Amino acid sequence: MSRIAYVNGRYLRHRQACVHIEDRGFQFADGVYEVIAVKGGGFVDEAPHLKRLHRSLDELRIAPPMSDAALKAVMRETVRRNRVVDGILYMQITRGTAPRDFPFPPGVRPSLIMTARVQRPIDPTILDRGVRVVTVPDIRWARPDIKSVALLPNALGKQHAREAGAYEAWQVDGNGNVTEGTSSNAWIVTAKNEIVTRHADQAILNGVTRVGVLQVARDAGLTLAERPFSVTEAKAAREAFLTSTTNFVVPIVRIDDATVGEGRPGEFVRRLRALYTDFALKGVVR
Amino acid sequence: MSRIAYVNGRYLRHRQACVHIEDRGFQFADGVYEVIAVKGGGFVDEAPHLKRLHRSLDELRIAPPMSDAALKAVMRETVRRNRVVDGILYMQITRGTAPRDFPFPPGVRPSLIMTARVQRPIDPTILDRGVRVVTVPDIRWARPDIKSVALLPNALGKQHAREAGAYEAWQVDGNGNVTEGTSSNAWIVTAKNEIVTRHADQAILNGVTRVGVLQVARDAGLTLAERPFSVTEAKAAREAFLTSTTNFVVPIVRIDDATVGEGRPGEFVRRLRALYTDFALKGVVR
Repeated sequence: MSRIAYVNGRYLRHRQACVHIEDRGFQFADGVYEVIAVKGGGFVDEAPHLKRLHRSLDELRIAPPMSDAALKAVMRETVRRNRVVDGILYMQITRGTAPRDFPFPPGVRPSLIMTARVQRPIDPTILDRGVRVVTVPDIRWARPDIKSVALLPNALGKQHAREAGAYEAWQVDGNGNVTEGTSSNAWIVTAKNEIVTRHADQAILNGVTRVGVLQVARDAGLTLAERPFSVTEAKAAREAFLTSTTNFVVPIVRIDDATVGEGRPGEFVRRLRALYTDFALKGVVR
Repeated sequence: MSRIAYVNGRYLRHRQACVHIEDRGFQFADGVYEVIAVKGGGFVDEAPHLKRLHRSLDELRIAPPMSDAALKAVMRETVRRNRVVDGILYMQITRGTAPRDFPFPPGVRPSLIMTARVQRPIDPTILDRGVRVVTVPDIRWARPDIKSVALLPNALGKQHAREAGAYEAWQVDGNGNVTEGTSSNAWIVTAKNEIVTRHADQAILNGVTRVGVLQVARDAGLTLAERPFSVTEAKAAREAFLTSTTNFVVPIVRIDDATVGEGRPGEFVRRLRALYTDFALKGVVR
């Protein structure tokens, strides 16, 4: 079965799915995106993903290409045509296609593309052993809270992590504080059993999974703090983990060359992963 | 006559020229570009543009898609097929097309697209009257010296300028110093007749026209300084101007709400424009 992609009103064979060379997504990174997990054929956290999509569009003053009802119909049809039961849906909206010029082109229709693909759950060995992250300077623009496709620094950071044999790179601001991973949010658990993740200001992308984990932790009566934490504090933490749409909650056991805690996934990360997974699967909408 | 675009080995009708939706230029801003002025059917400053292209590719570790000799042949064929005598050539190289994932995909061929279009010379009235610039915070990533397509902040800045009735936006760093325009370099002439433009470090894109203007100014025995200058210093300057590939040297007569000098283009900008234009046209290669 060949894969199918949605592109501006049409369902095309994936291999032939293309956008114009003057689409502003290609020439100016002038667009936004969302990745939504698909479980059992339904969507995890659909409402908050669409809410964030609208926030990104509003910040860039890109008009939604269609109503949410229509968008949801295309999401479902894209998943259906690709027979995805467990996997991810990717959608990208750009300002549209126009002769190349920096200012917003008048009277242009936004572009919308969507793909869906099967994705296996994360290897259980990874969850059992935990992963390593390395730290890199946060070299991104001043508005990573907007989920734009200006992802070049993220790609460079992730590549650096791969070459260092690490799973992810944690980006560090000028004050030595961790902002977030290149495609995930960053968390630690302190010696006082406080669960810490950076507060959601303009310096980070407020992950939908981040918000969900905060909620299940709060509901479980755990102690939370949304504040900056330094690399030094993270290396001395009891536990560390990352959260993302695609892999939910992943334990971290090394930061650069420092071992976190006892060097294996701890009780907090196990519990939060279980709680969030339960929460996410209960919230799946078809 | 319909326009023609070059896309990965083929000359296509412009309307049908497209790249895959998983081209990393579209999804990650993982690519670089150059714009080269075409005068009398030849290229202005061709060698420095190609040199800078290679620098950008090297910094991002993207392999050149073909030899310079082949690239030059495609440039000429693209200009010829579009019958451009005076205008611009645009070329963009991305890391290529691969299933969406942040790290560099192995074994992928870079994408290359090229377009050429007629562009009229800048309206002489603009040169006679001078233009206004407004200042905006420089919100770009830490490596604008790489000519990447991660241009979203530049597009936002230029849009801000247009809405403010200005020609360009000057980006200002955390120290109150002007880095550069959103698609041009920034210059002032001090009361002591010193021509000042920011030194080319990682904070600016080292414009090919910037380098050319420095050279003709030096050859003419003018006093030059490559150093930061503040918005305050710029507003109190004798003259101000910007340089770009497309419009060479353009006088600035207002910065935000401050009048520069006597509010009309001064002798330095006129002279530098004449000197650079002469230099550029002499250096055109066919």
